[in-house]
Amino acid sequence: MQMSIYLSCMSTKPPDPAFDEQELLPAIAQDADSGEVLMLAYVSQEALERTTETGLAHYYSRSRDELWQKGETSGNVQHVEEVRVDCDGDALLYLVDQDGGACHTGYESCFYRTLDGDVVADRLFDPDDVYE
Amino acid sequence: MQMSIYLSCMSTKPPDPAFDEQELLPAIAQDADSGEVLMLAYVSQEALERTTETGLAHYYSRSRDELWQKGETSGNVQHVEEVRVDCDGDALLYLVDQDGGACHTGYESCFYRTLDGDVVADRLFDPDDVYE
Repeated sequence: MQMSIYLSCMSTKPPDPAFDEQELLPAIAQDADSGEVLMLAYVSQEALERTTETGLAHYYSRSRDELWQKGETSGNVQHVEEVRVDCDGDALLYLVDQDGGACHTGYESCFYRTLDGDVVADRLFDPDDVYE
Repeated sequence: MQMSIYLSCMSTKPPDPAFDEQELLPAIAQDADSGEVLMLAYVSQEALERTTETGLAHYYSRSRDELWQKGETSGNVQHVEEVRVDCDGDALLYLVDQDGGACHTGYESCFYRTLDGDVVADRLFDPDDVYE
């Protein structure tokens, strides 16, 4: 029984990321070592291609309407060790080695607060020192 | 200097989840113990309220256009230990204690495959035994 499940797993064709259905897919960046969830951003097909080609995380900014490389300004780039795709192909997981903090506020993770406002992450840099 | 940064952290008002800008926000479910990213789904304001009221993860299905409680059919519910909100309030992180596997395919995580199709997670149940 175990073997049949195993074989069934290995023959499961991975879905292509569903860019035919959605222009942008959400991508979670997770620290490959600590497991901390660092941020959620969106990727276009081109952003994903640039990510896999360069090994550096690229996203697509919905507000600026442009492709961007994480850390282009701050230097806090993400070295992508692995990209995973979810069961139905409409979300991605980047396992990354994060230089500096992921959040533009200076925190290690963008998810540094609970709903109640408790701060639960470390602040690694002062954004005034990094962004003009 | 350290103290001023600390005080600055604590006075940072958390943003309300940005349901005024987006009806649905992406929510990442992460295993509170192992740190594994289990799934990404979407939440409405009502889904988030039901989650915080009951302690069980609720989401909003875009395909079925309805509120749903994770595990309602399979029994694989998520006990939510903490909800975090990201820096700009447009993504949520559920830290959960997951009963059974999170993925409807039987895997522990929906992110069980790399882009290249390698299976990188454990299969915990046979979906034929769980879903009719």
